Amino acid sequence: MRRSVEAILVVQEHNTPHVLLLQLGMNHFKLPGGRLRPGEEEVEGLRRKLTNALAPLNPSLHVTWDVGEVVGVFYRPNFDTVFYPYVPPHITRPKESRKLFVVQLPERCVFAVPKNMRLVAVPLFDLYDNLPRYGPVLAALPAALSRLRLNLQFVLPAAPPHGQGQHGQGGQGQGHGQGQGQGGQGGYGQHGQPDGHYPP
Amino acid sequence: MRRSVEAILVVQEHNTPHVLLLQLGMNHFKLPGGRLRPGEEEVEGLRRKLTNALAPLNPSLHVTWDVGEVVGVFYRPNFDTVFYPYVPPHITRPKESRKLFVVQLPERCVFAVPKNMRLVAVPLFDLYDNLPRYGPVLAALPAALSRLRLNLQFVLPAAPPHGQGQHGQGGQGQGHGQGQGQGGQGGYGQHGQPDGHYPP
Repeated sequence: MRRSVEAILVVQEHNTPHVLLLQLGMNHFKLPGGRLRPGEEEVEGLRRKLTNALAPLNPSLHVTWDVGEVVGVFYRPNFDTVFYPYVPPHITRPKESRKLFVVQLPERCVFAVPKNMRLVAVPLFDLYDNLPRYGPVLAALPAALSRLRLNLQFVLPAAPPHGQGQHGQGGQGQGHGQGQGQGGQGGYGQHGQPDGHYPP
Repeated sequence: MRRSVEAILVVQEHNTPHVLLLQLGMNHFKLPGGRLRPGEEEVEGLRRKLTNALAPLNPSLHVTWDVGEVVGVFYRPNFDTVFYPYVPPHITRPKESRKLFVVQLPERCVFAVPKNMRLVAVPLFDLYDNLPRYGPVLAALPAALSRLRLNLQFVLPAAPPHGQGQHGQGGQGQGHGQGQGQGGQGGYGQHGQPDGHYPP
């Protein structure tokens, strides 16, 4: 099975999250990433692909890619180009898997983009439910990312760190855990997990 | 803000994952769950709602609901019934949030279903991309669940526990972590996280 890895680079613009996409021509959009070499480890391979695609020549401007968690896995059952978020039941050997990782960007960084492409920041509300323009994988990103707290700090007040005040305050945003992801996965907090943030 | 919680009960039928939905009439499907009381804790409230909706009268048949992680959060910005997987940028106070939890079922259990509803197991491939029938929230479930290993043990051989053999074997399924979720979250393994399952 071929294995592909792709990066979801989320940036804030106008207080709403955008995903960075590479645009080829007028209507083709893709996440940065690509196929792994045989035996290549996924996170290493994604770092290699991101550096190839987006890092400037000047090594002092290179970004250390902070690869976070998997938000979705899509499978291509056969030789056409359709991907599904599951392996269909009659398929025993899908031809390709495509794993989507959230990658946390530093506060400032510089990208170099190939001449035949443009790097565009597309807001989640434009991706959402927009299959004709972005296809099923990109159109599913807003739902897959919704469990992460991407922009809610602008809208919903963050929950206090020790779970106090999550009950009975009557304001908006109570009950939202401020979980900071698993170790080393950067700053996208997850929505409250049952263990830890919600003591019984 | 109103807060709703809903449960995604996944079952295997014919070696492919299905989601249990409550069907009202011919065409209305919903996940079990509902609105929380003011100040009610989310996981507790979801257990209450599930017991109300699905537990038989006989207490010896009651299920201990093993509430797992959040797979999606949807927001209703105003008084109509449309939910989005993000807070639109012009909205500062969404009217309702709807948080979807995976709930792990025991190997056997008994449900009692209200007379006006049916409990149906809908396969992921029927939900996928089927907005006209299931609406955007349910149609987004396959993508949101794709990061969990639901049925892949039937299709892809599990990766060996210590990372050996993940590289260069040339077979299918290499590189798939066997992560067993975070502590206490039941048996749905997650796709490989960068820390732990893939030693550099």
